Amino acid sequence: MFERLLQLPLFQGMTKKEIYEVISRVKLDFTNYQAGDEIVLQGDPCKSLVYIISGQMSAEYRDPHSRFILTEKLNNVGLIEAYNMFGMTPRYSRTYIFNTNGVTLKIDKAMLLNQLMINYIAKINMLNTTCNQYHQTLKLLRDFPEDTVQDKITKFILSFSSTTRGEKELRIKMTDLADIIHETRLNVSKALNQMQEENLISLQRNFINIQDIEKLYKRI
Amino acid sequence: MFERLLQLPLFQGMTKKEIYEVISRVKLDFTNYQAGDEIVLQGDPCKSLVYIISGQMSAEYRDPHSRFILTEKLNNVGLIEAYNMFGMTPRYSRTYIFNTNGVTLKIDKAMLLNQLMINYIAKINMLNTTCNQYHQTLKLLRDFPEDTVQDKITKFILSFSSTTRGEKELRIKMTDLADIIHETRLNVSKALNQMQEENLISLQRNFINIQDIEKLYKRI
Repeated sequence: MFERLLQLPLFQGMTKKEIYEVISRVKLDFTNYQAGDEIVLQGDPCKSLVYIISGQMSAEYRDPHSRFILTEKLNNVGLIEAYNMFGMTPRYSRTYIFNTNGVTLKIDKAMLLNQLMINYIAKINMLNTTCNQYHQTLKLLRDFPEDTVQDKITKFILSFSSTTRGEKELRIKMTDLADIIHETRLNVSKALNQMQEENLISLQRNFINIQDIEKLYKRI
Repeated sequence: MFERLLQLPLFQGMTKKEIYEVISRVKLDFTNYQAGDEIVLQGDPCKSLVYIISGQMSAEYRDPHSRFILTEKLNNVGLIEAYNMFGMTPRYSRTYIFNTNGVTLKIDKAMLLNQLMINYIAKINMLNTTCNQYHQTLKLLRDFPEDTVQDKITKFILSFSSTTRGEKELRIKMTDLADIIHETRLNVSKALNQMQEENLISLQRNFINIQDIEKLYKRI
């Protein structure tokens, strides 16, 4: 367990001694989950740092207008939305669900600030996490513009994704997708079929599976 | 001077007593500037918190490919790019220049972490600053898509702006703008002239003045 803690994002760069010191001050709140259990819900206040100690999970984003649901398979994600703990809207932007049995470690906001962020490296790691999230989002914003219908679809998916890598599933009606990206239904249909022919996505009724969004992102 | 310090973003919410305590620990590095002086340069390492104590300034973003220069008039900005002090690329993304005489207060990164961010509220304020920057950028990314040529132009300008308000000046050739937003030169010309007729912008050769970008942003 201690070896796993050493790898957690907020502890990176700290010596074993420092981590021992931090851990001795903090109440460690471990929780066991079964496959299918929800870890946090979209819209819930983001009051705690949640570390994934073990297990595989998915993130699910539901459009507030009920036009689409975007599901991401997340492997090796250590920390759930630390970048949403502060600022004007400190709420989880997605629902996270374990696909396997799993274990989390939760550290509440007061403990993060009062006990963890006494340590110099922990402060830097926390600020690096939030700044990197901003830099990645800015990069995506500036990868401008979407030239083709395929690019528009890719950028739409990326703008609601938590990472620019890995498998994503989008549940959406073709007409809604066409409305959102301001293209005709026919253009959207052509672009999706072309992407399927190139083995970048697979299509079913109202359902798009993207095996690895990174392949699409590289084409923009 | 103390009253001005009370208003600075990182001190907001702190009691006068707390600010006295913080200030007593920190070397206060005030610098006087004249109109035309550069405060920080685009690309320079972002090693200090720079507060604008008094004076009016502009921010200038130069495209690395030399296609455009975006200048923003900034009033009442307290802190220069605190969100760029951490993360993968801790560098200033713009050059900041005083338009009037001015005074800055600089606090270096080590002092920020070791002396200022001992205070609970200072930690929250710093994390709020970086998270808010992420949330604003994400919102802009998701204000998707750009339906019209006017929207594309607006979003292009916003994606390189430090704020979504106020006056901006864009130096760019019409052909470069057309290339960047993937539209024809004719479409760009029509859109700009339409915007000028609506008194949203004023045009000169290779130069676009936007009196208040917020008016354009509201139309997307």
